[in-house]
Amino acid sequence: MDYSSMSPAEVRALIREGKITGPTAGMCAGYAQANLVILPKDLAYDFLLFTQRNPKSCPLLEVSDVGGKGLSYLGKNVDIYKDIPKYRIYENGELTGEYTDVSRFYREDLVSFLIGCSFSFESELLEAGIPVRHIEEGCNVPMYLTNIPCESAGAFSGNMVVSMRPIPHHLIPAAVTVTAAMPRVHGAPVQIGYPEAIGIKDINKPDFGDMVTIREGEVPVFWPCGVTPQAAVMKSRPSFAITHAPGHMFITDVKNVSLKL
Amino acid sequence: MDYSSMSPAEVRALIREGKITGPTAGMCAGYAQANLVILPKDLAYDFLLFTQRNPKSCPLLEVSDVGGKGLSYLGKNVDIYKDIPKYRIYENGELTGEYTDVSRFYREDLVSFLIGCSFSFESELLEAGIPVRHIEEGCNVPMYLTNIPCESAGAFSGNMVVSMRPIPHHLIPAAVTVTAAMPRVHGAPVQIGYPEAIGIKDINKPDFGDMVTIREGEVPVFWPCGVTPQAAVMKSRPSFAITHAPGHMFITDVKNVSLKL
Repeated sequence: MDYSSMSPAEVRALIREGKITGPTAGMCAGYAQANLVILPKDLAYDFLLFTQRNPKSCPLLEVSDVGGKGLSYLGKNVDIYKDIPKYRIYENGELTGEYTDVSRFYREDLVSFLIGCSFSFESELLEAGIPVRHIEEGCNVPMYLTNIPCESAGAFSGNMVVSMRPIPHHLIPAAVTVTAAMPRVHGAPVQIGYPEAIGIKDINKPDFGDMVTIREGEVPVFWPCGVTPQAAVMKSRPSFAITHAPGHMFITDVKNVSLKL
Repeated sequence: MDYSSMSPAEVRALIREGKITGPTAGMCAGYAQANLVILPKDLAYDFLLFTQRNPKSCPLLEVSDVGGKGLSYLGKNVDIYKDIPKYRIYENGELTGEYTDVSRFYREDLVSFLIGCSFSFESELLEAGIPVRHIEEGCNVPMYLTNIPCESAGAFSGNMVVSMRPIPHHLIPAAVTVTAAMPRVHGAPVQIGYPEAIGIKDINKPDFGDMVTIREGEVPVFWPCGVTPQAAVMKSRPSFAITHAPGHMFITDVKNVSLKL
C-alpha cells in the first residue's frame, strides 16, 4: 500500500480498524501531522500556557473542548481516542502502557491538545530533493533530549526534545529555507552539526525512535520536536495523561500550505 | 521629540511619567508593539484558548504570571499597570473609565495578556517605501468592526476588528509581502479594496480611531487588529477587565526581526 498518496481520512480509517499501528512518517504527503497530549482540565491552563511560551517545540494547532472526542479544525469525523496508531498512558508520571485504542480511558474532564509535527514538512523536503533518511530506511525518526531549557508554565517545565535528519551539506540552506517557512510544524532547525552543543552525548543512541545512517558528507540537523511537551508532562507527574507514542502521529485533514496562510 | 528613533525603555519612561498619553504609532521604529487585555484568573483559560483559536487577530506574545505586574519576554523593568499611555476599565462589559495609570486597580488574581499589534510592521512598510497615512497625518489608525466571526472559546466570542491603511495600488503586492512575513504582529491583510465584503458600511466612519485621507489611486487595505479581543471581552461582559485604549500600545523591547525567527 502506498500510504503517501492516500487521503488522511483513508489512512485514519485503517488506523481506527487497527490495520496501521506503526509510525506515520511519509503518510499522506502534503498534509500536516500532529502530536497529542490529553490532560485533565485542572492542568489545561498550565499546559496551554506552556505551549504559548514554547512555540518552536509546541506549536499548538487545536485544543478540543473539555470532554470532547472530536475536533473542529484539524479533521472531520475524528475520534481522537481511536485515530492514532499508538498511544501511551501515564499515571503519576509513569508510563503504564501502550495501546492502539484508548477509548476505555475516556473521561469527561479530559482536554486534547494537538501540536504540529515535523513529519508535516518531510514531503516538502522530498519535493525539494532533500533526502529523509528514516523514510528511506522505513523506521522511526531519531529523537533526543537536549540541554535547551523550555520556558516553564505552572506545573510544566523541562528541556527541548529534538528530531534529527542527516542532510548532505550542500542541501542545508535549502532544508533550512523549506522548514523555516513552516513554523506551525516546528519551523527552522535549532542546531546544525554540533550535537554536543545541545547536550547530545552519543548521536548513535537516540532517546526516542530509531537511529538512522549518517552518510559521508552528511551533517546531523536538529529540529524542535513535539515529544517536548510529553517530556514536560512526564516530569510534572500529573495524575493522568494520554499521549501519542513518539512517531505515531495524528494525520490531519489540513494541508501544509494552509498552515502557511 | 523624535519618538521614532528613541529606545522602548526611553519612551516607556516618558509614558510612565505621564509625558506621553497619545497613540504610539510611529514610535520606536523596528520594535514590536502590543495590545493589552487584563482579566481575572477564572477567565484566563477561556481567553488563552480564544487567542489560540484566532491567531490572526490575537497573536499572543506573552502572558504574565497570575498577579504579576512585570513581564519576562517582552520587556525589562516593566510595570504593565503604568507603562501604556492610556487604559480602559470595563466593569460587567461597560466602559467605566479611561486612565493613564491603572495601578489603583491592581488585584492579585489578575493576568495580563500581550497581543501583537500591527503598528509593529509600520516601520517596515515605511522602509519599503509604502506610506502609512495615520503616521503622516499624526492621528490614530482607523479601525472597524467586521462581519468576520471569530472562533468562540468558552465565554468569549465576537467578530474580527480590522485596522485600515490606504495603499497606492501599485504598492499592494509589496505591502502584502512585507506584512505576511510578520505573522506574530497580525501578518497579511484579510481584505483589499472591498470593505463592504467584510461588513463595513461606511469607510469614513471607523468604529475606533480616526479617519484618514484616501487619495486618488489608493485602495483601503484591512489587517486583523488586536482590538478584536477587546471587543470579545466587552461582549462577554466579565465582571472586570483592563485593556489598553485603542491605538495606545505597549512598546516592547523585542525587535520585529526577532519575532520572525
